[in-house]
Amino acid sequence: MTTHVEKFVYDFAEGNKDLKDLLGGKGANLAEMTNLGLPVPPGFTITTEACRAYLKGAEPPTLRDEISEHLASLERAMGKRLGDPDDPLLVSVRSGAKFSMPGMMETVLNVGLTDTSVSGLARQSGGNERFAWDSYRRLIQMFGKTVCGVPGEAFDEALEGAKKAKGTHNDLDLGAEDLKALVDTYKKIFTEHTGREFPQDPREQLDLAIRAVFESWNAERAVLYRRQERIPADLGTAVNVVAMVFGNLGPDSGTGVAFTRDPGTGNRGIYGDYLANAQGEDVVAGIRNTVPLQELERLDKKSYDELLAIMAKLEDHYRDLCDIEFTIERGKLWMLQTRVGKRTAAAAFTIASHLVDEGGIDLDEALHRVTGAQLAQLMFPTFAADSGELKPVAKGIAASPGAAVGKVVFDSHRAAEMGNAGERVILVRRETNPDDLPGMIAAQGVLTSRGGKTSHAAVVARGMGKTCVCGAEALDINIQARQFTVNGHTVSEGDIISIDGTTGNVYLGEVPVQPSPVVQYFEGKLSPDQDELVAAVHRIMTHADAKRRLRVRANADTAADAARARRFGAEGIGLCRTEHMFLGDRRELVERLILARTDEEREAALAALLPLQRNDFIEIFRAMDGLPVTVRLIDPPLHEFLPSLEELSVRVALAEARGEDPGKDATLLAAVRRMHEQNPMLGLRGVRLGLVVPGLFAMQVRAIAEAAAAVKAEGGDPRPEIMVPLVGAVQELETVRQEAEQVLREVGVDALIGTMIEVPRAALTSGQIAEAAEFFSFGTNDLTQMGWGFSRDDVEGSFFTRYLELGIFGVSPFESIDTEGVGRLVRISVEEGRATRPDLKIGVCGEHGGDPDSVHFFHSAGLDYVSCSPFRVPVARLEAGRAAVEAVGSDSR
Amino acid sequence: MTTHVEKFVYDFAEGNKDLKDLLGGKGANLAEMTNLGLPVPPGFTITTEACRAYLKGAEPPTLRDEISEHLASLERAMGKRLGDPDDPLLVSVRSGAKFSMPGMMETVLNVGLTDTSVSGLARQSGGNERFAWDSYRRLIQMFGKTVCGVPGEAFDEALEGAKKAKGTHNDLDLGAEDLKALVDTYKKIFTEHTGREFPQDPREQLDLAIRAVFESWNAERAVLYRRQERIPADLGTAVNVVAMVFGNLGPDSGTGVAFTRDPGTGNRGIYGDYLANAQGEDVVAGIRNTVPLQELERLDKKSYDELLAIMAKLEDHYRDLCDIEFTIERGKLWMLQTRVGKRTAAAAFTIASHLVDEGGIDLDEALHRVTGAQLAQLMFPTFAADSGELKPVAKGIAASPGAAVGKVVFDSHRAAEMGNAGERVILVRRETNPDDLPGMIAAQGVLTSRGGKTSHAAVVARGMGKTCVCGAEALDINIQARQFTVNGHTVSEGDIISIDGTTGNVYLGEVPVQPSPVVQYFEGKLSPDQDELVAAVHRIMTHADAKRRLRVRANADTAADAARARRFGAEGIGLCRTEHMFLGDRRELVERLILARTDEEREAALAALLPLQRNDFIEIFRAMDGLPVTVRLIDPPLHEFLPSLEELSVRVALAEARGEDPGKDATLLAAVRRMHEQNPMLGLRGVRLGLVVPGLFAMQVRAIAEAAAAVKAEGGDPRPEIMVPLVGAVQELETVRQEAEQVLREVGVDALIGTMIEVPRAALTSGQIAEAAEFFSFGTNDLTQMGWGFSRDDVEGSFFTRYLELGIFGVSPFESIDTEGVGRLVRISVEEGRATRPDLKIGVCGEHGGDPDSVHFFHSAGLDYVSCSPFRVPVARLEAGRAAVEAVGSDSR
Repeated sequence: MTTHVEKFVYDFAEGNKDLKDLLGGKGANLAEMTNLGLPVPPGFTITTEACRAYLKGAEPPTLRDEISEHLASLERAMGKRLGDPDDPLLVSVRSGAKFSMPGMMETVLNVGLTDTSVSGLARQSGGNERFAWDSYRRLIQMFGKTVCGVPGEAFDEALEGAKKAKGTHNDLDLGAEDLKALVDTYKKIFTEHTGREFPQDPREQLDLAIRAVFESWNAERAVLYRRQERIPADLGTAVNVVAMVFGNLGPDSGTGVAFTRDPGTGNRGIYGDYLANAQGEDVVAGIRNTVPLQELERLDKKSYDELLAIMAKLEDHYRDLCDIEFTIERGKLWMLQTRVGKRTAAAAFTIASHLVDEGGIDLDEALHRVTGAQLAQLMFPTFAADSGELKPVAKGIAASPGAAVGKVVFDSHRAAEMGNAGERVILVRRETNPDDLPGMIAAQGVLTSRGGKTSHAAVVARGMGKTCVCGAEALDINIQARQFTVNGHTVSEGDIISIDGTTGNVYLGEVPVQPSPVVQYFEGKLSPDQDELVAAVHRIMTHADAKRRLRVRANADTAADAARARRFGAEGIGLCRTEHMFLGDRRELVERLILARTDEEREAALAALLPLQRNDFIEIFRAMDGLPVTVRLIDPPLHEFLPSLEELSVRVALAEARGEDPGKDATLLAAVRRMHEQNPMLGLRGVRLGLVVPGLFAMQVRAIAEAAAAVKAEGGDPRPEIMVPLVGAVQELETVRQEAEQVLREVGVDALIGTMIEVPRAALTSGQIAEAAEFFSFGTNDLTQMGWGFSRDDVEGSFFTRYLELGIFGVSPFESIDTEGVGRLVRISVEEGRATRPDLKIGVCGEHGGDPDSVHFFHSAGLDYVSCSPFRVPVARLEAGRAAVEAVGSDSR
Repeated sequence: MTTHVEKFVYDFAEGNKDLKDLLGGKGANLAEMTNLGLPVPPGFTITTEACRAYLKGAEPPTLRDEISEHLASLERAMGKRLGDPDDPLLVSVRSGAKFSMPGMMETVLNVGLTDTSVSGLARQSGGNERFAWDSYRRLIQMFGKTVCGVPGEAFDEALEGAKKAKGTHNDLDLGAEDLKALVDTYKKIFTEHTGREFPQDPREQLDLAIRAVFESWNAERAVLYRRQERIPADLGTAVNVVAMVFGNLGPDSGTGVAFTRDPGTGNRGIYGDYLANAQGEDVVAGIRNTVPLQELERLDKKSYDELLAIMAKLEDHYRDLCDIEFTIERGKLWMLQTRVGKRTAAAAFTIASHLVDEGGIDLDEALHRVTGAQLAQLMFPTFAADSGELKPVAKGIAASPGAAVGKVVFDSHRAAEMGNAGERVILVRRETNPDDLPGMIAAQGVLTSRGGKTSHAAVVARGMGKTCVCGAEALDINIQARQFTVNGHTVSEGDIISIDGTTGNVYLGEVPVQPSPVVQYFEGKLSPDQDELVAAVHRIMTHADAKRRLRVRANADTAADAARARRFGAEGIGLCRTEHMFLGDRRELVERLILARTDEEREAALAALLPLQRNDFIEIFRAMDGLPVTVRLIDPPLHEFLPSLEELSVRVALAEARGEDPGKDATLLAAVRRMHEQNPMLGLRGVRLGLVVPGLFAMQVRAIAEAAAAVKAEGGDPRPEIMVPLVGAVQELETVRQEAEQVLREVGVDALIGTMIEVPRAALTSGQIAEAAEFFSFGTNDLTQMGWGFSRDDVEGSFFTRYLELGIFGVSPFESIDTEGVGRLVRISVEEGRATRPDLKIGVCGEHGGDPDSVHFFHSAGLDYVSCSPFRVPVARLEAGRAAVEAVGSDSR
């Protein structure tokens, strides 16, 4: 791109599909079709290089002459001249950048029409005066708006006025004379706003239109779009100048779109729509209904057969589903555009598998053509197709996809009770917190009235692959009364509702749900020979597993999760959190631990926790027999296990105001005050807790070791790995390691000891930390929080949404890893950790472990494994496979 | 050090002072003195290399023979043999590592005494049986404890028993027979604890003692000490085997210490202490009082003259104050040790200046020999020396040094009132918060009953150079009653107290204070020719200013601070915080801003703030006329300007319980709840606030620009620089920059626009950020908080103290920059920022800017300036000078 290019204009015949940098996507594909011998209207492309020079204020001095040359050649090819009063050549001027930026930049049609040539056009179109004046009207409107900045409303109002005067709502009712008058009005509007006459020099029209397209690269919406999509700001756009062809010249003309396969299902066949006597914009406007493409056979057999032959040729050439735009002008077929077509998730898998069968592509390429995001979509249950007619009673934020139906329940305890009794429930809360976990696990879905895509409910539900609608603000929830009201309806505990996590819709009553066949396959309930889609998924997943270098583990805290993860293909547990082992009934023990005034009291509380934790681990080790289980020692601050400062303060103040003794609340309040932290995320947690509370980590290590010994004794093969959270300095890890090794020796069990890398300093001093760690696991959630300096809990309500709007991120860095900042820490850590300890095992256990783009990053950064929620395990397997074949695939991602 | 060294034992004559790596500090200096021809008892040093090999379990096979050779040569030199029954050679076995680790490792004296040789020693000492048996007793005790791990108390109890039996408290009352019996008892104790007889083979004694010294390198206390002091764990210690000489052989023997100059004042002369008929350990034990060294002239003129000649020679040789240990054995002077001596801060400056006068060193070296910490000590006022007799009424944490006397005041408002009326006040609070700032500014000192070295009071007071004692828990403060009680005393508002920030002592009543002459010099109230210390400081500061490459600016938020900083040598303001401009009376406007429901209300609140901010800036620009002033746009979360959630919740709940309308409190509570953040440090603050609250940053930029315009109009030369806080991504800065440039254009004023680098991601993407920044300023406080993942407010009460104890840090990373982790971010940022923009101006404005070690780091990282509190400006100037001459100086730092 930095070499000097003398040539700024390319005839279509001079380009090809690999020149997208220079010619943009549209120009490159038009050139490709031209060279395939397909009937593309003649034209030429002005390069992105010319655009870049123009935008720097240095339009190439040779550009005008080059355009003149190519225009002359276009005129020769068409046998017409631009602006010829008798037989004018008209051209379209269209933008076309390297990366598709739909609707972001400008297009001007019908360039070349003037007061004189409009009559020539009428004559050449067989005396179709209406067509000619309508075309002229459209030019003035588009040119005025796009090239000269005339407000679009001015033209819209004039058009509305003309229709009103005629007593109609339909453009088609305006006759030639009406349109002629409208052209006069439009020209006056043009002059009013620009201070000049509408240009009657067709070459001036062309030059101004080209510059307007150049400049549209820097239009505000385009800048914003690029910022969001992280498209470099200095690429520039190409400009395509193409001879106009018209589908609106009579019944032997028309326009259509076509797909070489069904983009909905992926099935083979001809799919498309056709509209006779119309232009592309009319199809968009929906003035008349299109007909299925097959009808064209009856209307124009010659064009139809030619189109089918072309479609076969394009599929053969692109080896993929192609999406085509065409126009028939008086029985002559013209190809206006082609590209590899968008498709649904199911179609992506089916097409890829079919293409392998047909010999079009190999399995690597098939793997490359499907995405983890598509697989994830296929894993959610859906509401049956015919429920689309139902009216939702409220709409919230689509926080975690899927379809869920169940009885409304307002608290976690009740949800768990009913759920465990086999009932389907929807947990409805204002917002959720970690205490709601058992209820969320037991529920079909979660509905909240507050919070957005990054709220606790949303994040946890996505992690579990559980349907969630959050922030449904129309709901007025009364927990005490066990009911909510919404738009005049009252819903009580036990009433059935349905929620759609893909749309955010909330329905009263039961909407029929169909389970995902893909999940049924992973669960072993459906075999590949029973379902074509499942067959395609099976085939591609098998190939992904064969090709991937990354291992895939799951984040699982319970035996049930571990078992599920294993069915989904997990090769171990990368993160077993121990926090939940301090919740529920065990809170009382944690309170005793916190309030302990003597060593004896503290030791007694720990001793009581030990057998409970040990049993938890025994079950998990059994479920993951023979596979590694990485247990993270307790991470959150202890005061999170106590009631909130606000709650206790009010309780104590009210008791005192009533002259009552606040009792234990007063003791708790004192403890909470003492332990209160301004920024708990940056406070006494993780390894710090382990170093400050004597015996806490040792108790956990003992529970792990004794559980492993017990499972071994029953003939199992437990493989515990002990992970220390929040380490920032090797000295911390060394201190904990000494204590842990002592306990392991006492119990007589071996376990790897390693650390989370989640504090920036840990990443930056990984060379030292690897001296005391047998493995690293990146906690990319915290690494993102600390690397960016924002807390996930706090950002979504305040500035995060605004940041996405402003284009400061294209995507939340909690969803896809920020490769430039946080990812750089990961790369530094991997490189320097391995320099110290070449056999260092390295994984990731943040939520990024199940995110497609992030998995590719972790592959390229050289990690050994990713760990994610059980539900994301198949996605991670697929993406790990794709990452492995990436080097040999094309750039279709 | 990695080259292969065949030789593991060096005679003193073979070494020199530059071989500390191999011979340790003590061995290298003994070698140096030996080679200077001074009377050092013969001996040899076993190298650190041998220790390292031994500790790896691979004692060099040749070591034993080498020791035998050197021992034989020592025996020849002394004319005695180890263990000779008639005339035994005794040796001391002493550790000596490269870095001084005082008291951390082991020493064994009198090695070579046995049941038979003890009589020989008695004969050789002129029949001094008592001396011989006492020496043997000491050997068994030291050897038992050090080499064989016998508990020291066992010996202590036996000794006590012997004295008790004799009816005395004094060792000297025990006669030869008593000691002989005690030796028997000691030998029994030895056997009881070790299961073996006390070794009668003197060579075995020696070998075991040497190994014990080797092993003491890994004793727990030594490991901890090294972790704290960041001394590498693998250096090992050398072992010095030296012929024993005895100062306790009669009145013609003795022992002493001496300094070549006064280590207290730096004055020239002979300083030291002498104790006749004693050994070094007797001096330490304080059994008899020493006499001034000058007395020795009368006692033993020959030795005295020889000592003076040796001291002159050593000073000449080391070109510095030397600290000496010597022993006289029957009229023969022996040098046991020398090293460059420790000294007070005042002595450091005076000695350095004198040595320049004497031609011993040049000014670069003089600069190198004083430290910023010493200068800082000299800048605090002190209680007059004779007040040492006073008894403090309480003791807190010495949080910020100095001596302050004043009337007790319990709130900031009253403190400011009285302070501004010219009264000296001490602000007494449970703890302080930003609202106490005006009171802290007006007070002489601050006393709190809660919080440690990193509490708000401590940090702010240190920043201001204001005396502070915090965490004085004996104080029971009753703000409402305006009094506190302490140990039975009641102190009311207006009563006078005195607090010593250097010791943490709190006194009732007035203790006389003397101001720092060095501060009087900086303030222009004392000239160098009026005071010898000031002359030395002036001379060295002048040289530092001439040599330093780093500029020094001040952090100052008010015109008064700016003016003071300028007197102290600041070359601009590196950080002018704008938060205080939202405090006090202006809170009401901030409340309006926060509670604004419409654009109009918000704009009205901002418009009301504009002129207030503008006036603040006008005064600051005037005070810093001609010098750059970096203004940081508002950083803290807006809800910090509202009352706390806890306070409001209780207020509203109580009002409601009383059936009252909580009124505005309810509105405020709703706002606080809405804006409440789990982790405000990681929440909506800094640039995020600027992007989310429309008009806020624009108002501030306008206030800056209009203030600059006003000062320019009156003939001034304002140099504003606008600094955006908390930037993590270049897109944030670009967005703010556009808005700010627009305002600057409107007002017609130029200003640099730059950013804090305080978020790790900003450092990691500095190459991008420099595209939108004309300057960087490292906010190393936040960079430390986020890099380590701990919040300064939260750490000190919980795990920080424990971390310092555990040796996880040697020093708080908030005090001295953590060069490995946080410093690495700084280096990356400087390198990549300058790669994008070679003329990028780079500074630091965290508190580290005034910390000596950190200043050296910033110099080496290539910064352009440091900015610190006004009081630290001279320290930073000095250290910047030292950093600049570092390459040519020695390693005396």
